[in-house]
Amino acid sequence: MTSPLIGVVMGSSSDWDTMQHAVQILTQFGVPHAAQVVSAHRMPDDMFAYAESAQGRGLRAIIAGAGGAAHLPGMLAAKTVVPVLGVPVASRHLQGVDSLHSIVQMPKGVPVATFAIGAAGAANAALFAVAMLASGDPALRQKLEAFRADQTAAARAMALPPAA
Amino acid sequence: MTSPLIGVVMGSSSDWDTMQHAVQILTQFGVPHAAQVVSAHRMPDDMFAYAESAQGRGLRAIIAGAGGAAHLPGMLAAKTVVPVLGVPVASRHLQGVDSLHSIVQMPKGVPVATFAIGAAGAANAALFAVAMLASGDPALRQKLEAFRADQTAAARAMALPPAA
Amino acid sequence: MTSPLIGVVMGSSSDWDTMQHAVQILTQFGVPHAAQVVSAHRMPDDMFAYAESAQGRGLRAIIAGAGGAAHLPGMLAAKTVVPVLGVPVASRHLQGVDSLHSIVQMPKGVPVATFAIGAAGAANAALFAVAMLASGDPALRQKLEAFRADQTAAARAMALPPAA
Amino acid sequence: MTSPLIGVVMGSSSDWDTMQHAVQILTQFGVPHAAQVVSAHRMPDDMFAYAESAQGRGLRAIIAGAGGAAHLPGMLAAKTVVPVLGVPVASRHLQGVDSLHSIVQMPKGVPVATFAIGAAGAANAALFAVAMLASGDPALRQKLEAFRADQTAAARAMALPPAA
Amino acid sequence: MTSPLIGVVMGSSSDWDTMQHAVQILTQFGVPHAAQVVSAHRMPDDMFAYAESAQGRGLRAIIAGAGGAAHLPGMLAAKTVVPVLGVPVASRHLQGVDSLHSIVQMPKGVPVATFAIGAAGAANAALFAVAMLASGDPALRQKLEAFRADQTAAARAMALPPAA
Amino acid sequence: MTSPLIGVVMGSSSDWDTMQHAVQILTQFGVPHAAQVVSAHRMPDDMFAYAESAQGRGLRAIIAGAGGAAHLPGMLAAKTVVPVLGVPVASRHLQGVDSLHSIVQMPKGVPVATFAIGAAGAANAALFAVAMLASGDPALRQKLEAFRADQTAAARAMALPPAA
Amino acid sequence: MTSPLIGVVMGSSSDWDTMQHAVQILTQFGVPHAAQVVSAHRMPDDMFAYAESAQGRGLRAIIAGAGGAAHLPGMLAAKTVVPVLGVPVASRHLQGVDSLHSIVQMPKGVPVATFAIGAAGAANAALFAVAMLASGDPALRQKLEAFRADQTAAARAMALPPAA
Amino acid sequence: MTSPLIGVVMGSSSDWDTMQHAVQILTQFGVPHAAQVVSAHRMPDDMFAYAESAQGRGLRAIIAGAGGAAHLPGMLAAKTVVPVLGVPVASRHLQGVDSLHSIVQMPKGVPVATFAIGAAGAANAALFAVAMLASGDPALRQKLEAFRADQTAAARAMALPPAA
Repeated sequence: MTSPLIGVVMGSSSDWDTMQHAVQILTQFGVPHAAQVVSAHRMPDDMFAYAESAQGRGLRAIIAGAGGAAHLPGMLAAKTVVPVLGVPVASRHLQGVDSLHSIVQMPKGVPVATFAIGAAGAANAALFAVAMLASGDPALRQKLEAFRADQTAAARAMALPPAA
Repeated sequence: MTSPLIGVVMGSSSDWDTMQHAVQILTQFGVPHAAQVVSAHRMPDDMFAYAESAQGRGLRAIIAGAGGAAHLPGMLAAKTVVPVLGVPVASRHLQGVDSLHSIVQMPKGVPVATFAIGAAGAANAALFAVAMLASGDPALRQKLEAFRADQTAAARAMALPPAA
Repeated sequence: MTSPLIGVVMGSSSDWDTMQHAVQILTQFGVPHAAQVVSAHRMPDDMFAYAESAQGRGLRAIIAGAGGAAHLPGMLAAKTVVPVLGVPVASRHLQGVDSLHSIVQMPKGVPVATFAIGAAGAANAALFAVAMLASGDPALRQKLEAFRADQTAAARAMALPPAA
Repeated sequence: MTSPLIGVVMGSSSDWDTMQHAVQILTQFGVPHAAQVVSAHRMPDDMFAYAESAQGRGLRAIIAGAGGAAHLPGMLAAKTVVPVLGVPVASRHLQGVDSLHSIVQMPKGVPVATFAIGAAGAANAALFAVAMLASGDPALRQKLEAFRADQTAAARAMALPPAA
Repeated sequence: MTSPLIGVVMGSSSDWDTMQHAVQILTQFGVPHAAQVVSAHRMPDDMFAYAESAQGRGLRAIIAGAGGAAHLPGMLAAKTVVPVLGVPVASRHLQGVDSLHSIVQMPKGVPVATFAIGAAGAANAALFAVAMLASGDPALRQKLEAFRADQTAAARAMALPPAA
Repeated sequence: MTSPLIGVVMGSSSDWDTMQHAVQILTQFGVPHAAQVVSAHRMPDDMFAYAESAQGRGLRAIIAGAGGAAHLPGMLAAKTVVPVLGVPVASRHLQGVDSLHSIVQMPKGVPVATFAIGAAGAANAALFAVAMLASGDPALRQKLEAFRADQTAAARAMALPPAA
Repeated sequence: MTSPLIGVVMGSSSDWDTMQHAVQILTQFGVPHAAQVVSAHRMPDDMFAYAESAQGRGLRAIIAGAGGAAHLPGMLAAKTVVPVLGVPVASRHLQGVDSLHSIVQMPKGVPVATFAIGAAGAANAALFAVAMLASGDPALRQKLEAFRADQTAAARAMALPPAA
Repeated sequence: MTSPLIGVVMGSSSDWDTMQHAVQILTQFGVPHAAQVVSAHRMPDDMFAYAESAQGRGLRAIIAGAGGAAHLPGMLAAKTVVPVLGVPVASRHLQGVDSLHSIVQMPKGVPVATFAIGAAGAANAALFAVAMLASGDPALRQKLEAFRADQTAAARAMALPPAA
């Protein structure tokens, strides 16, 4: 079995609706990955252990989704130099504006690469991870270029219904 | 020497302009306290150690100030049951809206008591800590009531200049 | 019968959906409490009487929830030195941003400890009240630590379904 | 001496920079008024007494300015049926968005007439008070119409410099 | 038939869901009023005519509701010295934040008294109009005081269900 | 067949619900037009080709709708001097605030005429295009004036139901 | 003397700092124009007269700048089918967010083409007006294309200083 | 001479104050890089050429800074699979909220890794690029770990002045 290159973590199983879009992309590209719940606030020691072991386990990037006071991506980034990609999960009352602020506004010295709120951001974090890996993996780059070409073709093929 | 009852921590010495207002209140009330820099992102292990030892050291509350993606109060709260009081420090571009969101929007299970953005919030966090201690300390409660009475008297004495 | 240590008040019975999450936590921890409607705007004299008598009645903290121009927590805090914990109830049009601003942005001198918008904030206000009481009550502290441990265990046990 | 028809109150003497614009208008129109500091949070009992006695003292309206968690206008309105006009004073960090929310988002049953953030709002609250009084005072109405006509004339006379 | 003292206008019949709450209050207090659609953008001349004739028709106040780029209240106020009360109707995409800004942020010289977004604001504008009329009408003031007393009694009677 | 004067483009067929309101207006006015999907991000070369050929194809204006990081209107405007009218499509989590910012905040030198978020903005962009064409086409101007007159008549005819 | 093709209006001479950027562009392109103060709120009748006469005076577009509750562009658009270009002037407390909302969120049926907040928006409104006129004026189009080419050349020539 | 691994681009030389913080980090780490102005709106063809040639030139990542309707990062990402890191430059009126929305809210399929508004974000984008390169470059990783260790040491050494 191939050991995972990309870790996908989220603060709660309720974030799965959003974060599965990252997993779908990784699966589609055949990138070894592992997804699990790691809560910054309810499992802080596990979170630190996860980050500390990330490099040794061969992770090339961590995709972390969280909502509200979303501390997971930033705290992972504080504990490892493995690149952390943050996904703001839409929150119930503030629609993810709080999640976005908590993830993107990191202080100088500890970066988190942040993507769009919600499912689009989860998918894009995975595509970004693929692009990172692709720089040293020509076959993967070809897959990514093919994905983009398919995407362009699909957009070109979009027909509009008649106006109602 | 009395060991501190209240810990005052902040993410950077640049937060001192704001957080000194907490220290001034604690000093004014004679509450033993200790202030220091503990950065969630640059000193994560120290932060965890700080939180883990808080109860054993006799801390009755921790006042934590941070700006931007302000993870310090929430991560301390994740590691200790000692009450954590969070102060959103005004950020350069978003004026502390990001800090406020990052501190107040904690998920169910790990509370951070949040106060106003900036110096008023720092002072109020300290006054709140005083009120917490006062419930078991009649002398302190009297001081707090006197503080309030003075405050009322000062407001009552405020005169308005003639309109320009 | 034990007299209440924590008062839970809200501006309207329509806030109960949110505020019952505070009551559930207090009940779960066996903390004596009493919940009732106290409207700042429709029952201002009752509100003042409530605050004035809070200390004499043995209240150790007041949890106050309100939405929109949410004046209840701040006005209680203006009338008593008993710690006030504010819960921003989500408003219909502004989703609780107005409630949050009205509660958290208190001026220097009169603190309100503010928690997240909605049910999570209500539960967390109660957990914070428990933590306050726990500092003088080792049995309660043990319960709180057990609660946290259970919470960690539950998060650790969260499994993710396969990606759709 | 004429007893005041309009009360002008504010939470702190630091609000005077804004609120003097209300006083200037009332003076200009010769409307008897009295301005003073009445802090909702530091002088709650005075505030209630102010509101309770407002009608008996002959006040026809109260202009109340406050910033941040601006409870003064709403609490006065809760205690009297004399019309309350609220002026959001610009706050340091949130520029008065918090003040506006705290004043305008009153619940059904207790109205506060709210005006623009800052000096323009203070002046307009006073002009609105003049308009209220003018309905029963033909001489005042004439003054108000003349004020408006002058204002129109002044706007018409505005010349633009050449483009730089 | 009594001629109306209060005019209630709105930009579209789709605002009626909100603005009927103003009409209900006026009806409940027996205040003569008339409600109609007057669109600032689609009926600008009618709007000006409405404002110009307001005083002559005996209107003591105009309650104007509008959403989005809500120009109706401000433009009425530009054309008459009869007091204008503005109600921000919730807009589809921005939830009435745009309506609130368009109504409340009037420039110095032309006031609009603004109330909360949506139905609560509509009701409160009507209650404010009642309060204005009540200053010269002791019977109406009594009704208003009774309304307030009933409101207080109803709030006091609010019982909370058991926590779920 | 008449060649189109107005191009209507959108980033995805999912924008059609919004953008069909532009097409309906153009059809109603008999303005030759053509609608299609042109995605800035998935079809960047097609987008550039579309813009480069716009003038040669006789387009007098381009109506471009997009949501989120809405780059389509601005990039078209960067590639042609044909006037570009931008329509912010409501986004899922931020309700079109992001779309509005991305479209309206163009830097000096490359204008995009921006309209309201959603269907109203789409219809208004088309009405604006009609007004542009009408300046050189008296028959079209007459149609536009008739449309406005009908609109006024329809607003005048709006009746209000009795208050519930 | 050539009669103006573009009218430039603003609510106050204090808007000139912003709006002169529109005038500079029109002058640079040799487009006949006239700038003046027309206040929606202080000169409503003049504003209506301005709009009503716009077409007869040969105006091909009106550029209207206003701040806060910025009603000028929308009310002009309500009174004429001549295209109206709106420029949100930055307001003192809300930085032009209020101006933007008041201008761009027009209801279906009455369009205002809106540009960026402040000087960039003023210049872009003028460039857009030039582009409108250019469709029937090949010489002007050439000028506009040359302007764009110069702009591109200037951007290409931008050198970066060494990092500090 | 080593050919650049990281491209740093920005929409205008006025963005240099912000973006030089990225260049400083790359220089400090000895990462070959090249910085230049590439404007999405004023140099669209150059921008496309830049993106198209990025991979061939050996770029491993592009750091793109832009303000307002910040299209540069997203359009580069639309034209290359080389990872794009976006830096929201603070805008004059909206403080970079517009820039942030325009950069981070990319649609599914075309990711931009987004960092904090302003100088901190520029530095962090560069640190993130270093981390990406470090995964295949043990010496660089060591440098990055040393940088982090120094950063931790510097934070630990921060002393607080006495309270004023």
